Amino acid sequence: MSIRIFITGGTFDKEYNELDGSLFFQDTHLPEMLKLGRCNLDVELRTLMMIDSLEMGVDERELIVFQCNKSDEDKIVITHGTDTMSETAKVLAEKVKDKTIVLTGAMIPYKFGSSDGLFNLGSALAFVQTLPHGIYIAMNGKIFNWDNVRKNKQTGQFEELH
Amino acid sequence: MSIRIFITGGTFDKEYNELDGSLFFQDTHLPEMLKLGRCNLDVELRTLMMIDSLEMGVDERELIVFQCNKSDEDKIVITHGTDTMSETAKVLAEKVKDKTIVLTGAMIPYKFGSSDGLFNLGSALAFVQTLPHGIYIAMNGKIFNWDNVRKNKQTGQFEELH
Amino acid sequence: MSIRIFITGGTFDKEYNELDGSLFFQDTHLPEMLKLGRCNLDVELRTLMMIDSLEMGVDERELIVFQCNKSDEDKIVITHGTDTMSETAKVLAEKVKDKTIVLTGAMIPYKFGSSDGLFNLGSALAFVQTLPHGIYIAMNGKIFNWDNVRKNKQTGQFEELH
Amino acid sequence: MSIRIFITGGTFDKEYNELDGSLFFQDTHLPEMLKLGRCNLDVELRTLMMIDSLEMGVDERELIVFQCNKSDEDKIVITHGTDTMSETAKVLAEKVKDKTIVLTGAMIPYKFGSSDGLFNLGSALAFVQTLPHGIYIAMNGKIFNWDNVRKNKQTGQFEELH
Repeated sequence: MSIRIFITGGTFDKEYNELDGSLFFQDTHLPEMLKLGRCNLDVELRTLMMIDSLEMGVDERELIVFQCNKSDEDKIVITHGTDTMSETAKVLAEKVKDKTIVLTGAMIPYKFGSSDGLFNLGSALAFVQTLPHGIYIAMNGKIFNWDNVRKNKQTGQFEELH
Repeated sequence: MSIRIFITGGTFDKEYNELDGSLFFQDTHLPEMLKLGRCNLDVELRTLMMIDSLEMGVDERELIVFQCNKSDEDKIVITHGTDTMSETAKVLAEKVKDKTIVLTGAMIPYKFGSSDGLFNLGSALAFVQTLPHGIYIAMNGKIFNWDNVRKNKQTGQFEELH
Repeated sequence: MSIRIFITGGTFDKEYNELDGSLFFQDTHLPEMLKLGRCNLDVELRTLMMIDSLEMGVDERELIVFQCNKSDEDKIVITHGTDTMSETAKVLAEKVKDKTIVLTGAMIPYKFGSSDGLFNLGSALAFVQTLPHGIYIAMNGKIFNWDNVRKNKQTGQFEELH
Repeated sequence: MSIRIFITGGTFDKEYNELDGSLFFQDTHLPEMLKLGRCNLDVELRTLMMIDSLEMGVDERELIVFQCNKSDEDKIVITHGTDTMSETAKVLAEKVKDKTIVLTGAMIPYKFGSSDGLFNLGSALAFVQTLPHGIYIAMNGKIFNWDNVRKNKQTGQFEELH
């Protein structure tokens, strides 16, 4: 049983540019994170884009939908910026059936030492193996259904709508 | 829904004694790890012992069984040294019913920077929320039934028996 | 023999704001860094400001000059953003006599795990103990006189003028 | 002006063996540490041995003396376990003249995340550039003459004899 991981960027993969002090995207850190976790699962990684989720529009979401539908695996983890993660989850719920898709992300870049990313990645890979088909968000130990989740902009945390 | 975490020590919680260069146990790092993962779950922590799992005997396992049976929560994660994790799982399978218990651990101490512990903890907390009653081991992204797992002493990895 | 450390901010002390993804200043990390280095020197810390060195103007430099002149200690380390470190060094050279002053900084924030800050701090504290009175910049293992140094904006490294 | 670094092992370079939980030596971490510190000095690295300084005997110290005398550079940093660092310094003081030699080490292995090694390395490289010929120990920000230093076994810290 193989698991597909699609990478879209987000805080997970941000890096610090020491020449001008800005944050930017270079390569994904997912292979490094899986190695650190000594992950023994059969995973297939693919980078679809490397962007901040605030820059994600209709075209990017269509690409994610297309790749999820095309994927042979029915267990898919998507790394994604937290700001619009629940929007992408909604689009996926409309257009992808018969797959278990878990979106996850991080509040702190993996490279910054104090990241929650490794914890979230561990839980996302566990949820995707055990949950029935559907679209979910895994953040901070919790699992949310796509239609019952929002990011609270004040606290930075994901919470149920009702 | 509350999750119980029982702490027994193991590599997870080992520290480096800078006066004599030995490894030893002091306090558990679980609270720090849950904070790093920004864990939002309702968890109840309890330290049962702080030992190397090679030192775990009949009495220690009886104590773990007793605490699992006494626990109000039916979702329990146990942090445990990897060397005898599958033995403890067997004892639990005989003596604890109607609970989902997930044992997890680490190959590298959490304090040593490059630990797999945060990844394993994230996955254990996800598995315990989604799996039916039973005794399991969660290591390196994988989930094992108590009666189909062993630690390969050569590779240090957990694998299925058949 | 006591050493004075003046803190002015710079990359050294930048942090990641997980709510909006920006970089900002909060508290200085110098006490934490000295503790990590198990620094046994008699040092007196004082935060003069917490700013990016691109925002440093005439008033801020006058304050630094004033504090250096007022300081009882004749050995002073100043943590400073790298972009205008050599400008501040020039102003100090004109206006502060009979003291050994070493400016230092970092290319990567201390909190981001992969910082050069601890290495630079260790060398600055060594140079300040051994060099004659004068104004210096200590970066990346090297020591520069105030009148023979510039930051190369392409490489991000400090180099001699001639 | 080139600086010679001789590596002898010590806590600096210890690693955790995840198969049996012991500490051991593999490769030195000095290149990695110099890179992290973005060290721009012209340094020549050479590993003489990789041992715990408690295992260091007459033969090993003769080898260090021999290499120091043979070295073209008159500025030498030696990484060394802390337990017998002052003994090696004494032997060097008898047998090596006309060189500045700074011994340094760490209380915590570099790989364990919370090491004082990077701070000590930064200060040792600064001291070696600025001190007159002689044999010194650089630990925790301080510099000690070879004939006025001991490691306090209770506190783990280096202190002056008088």
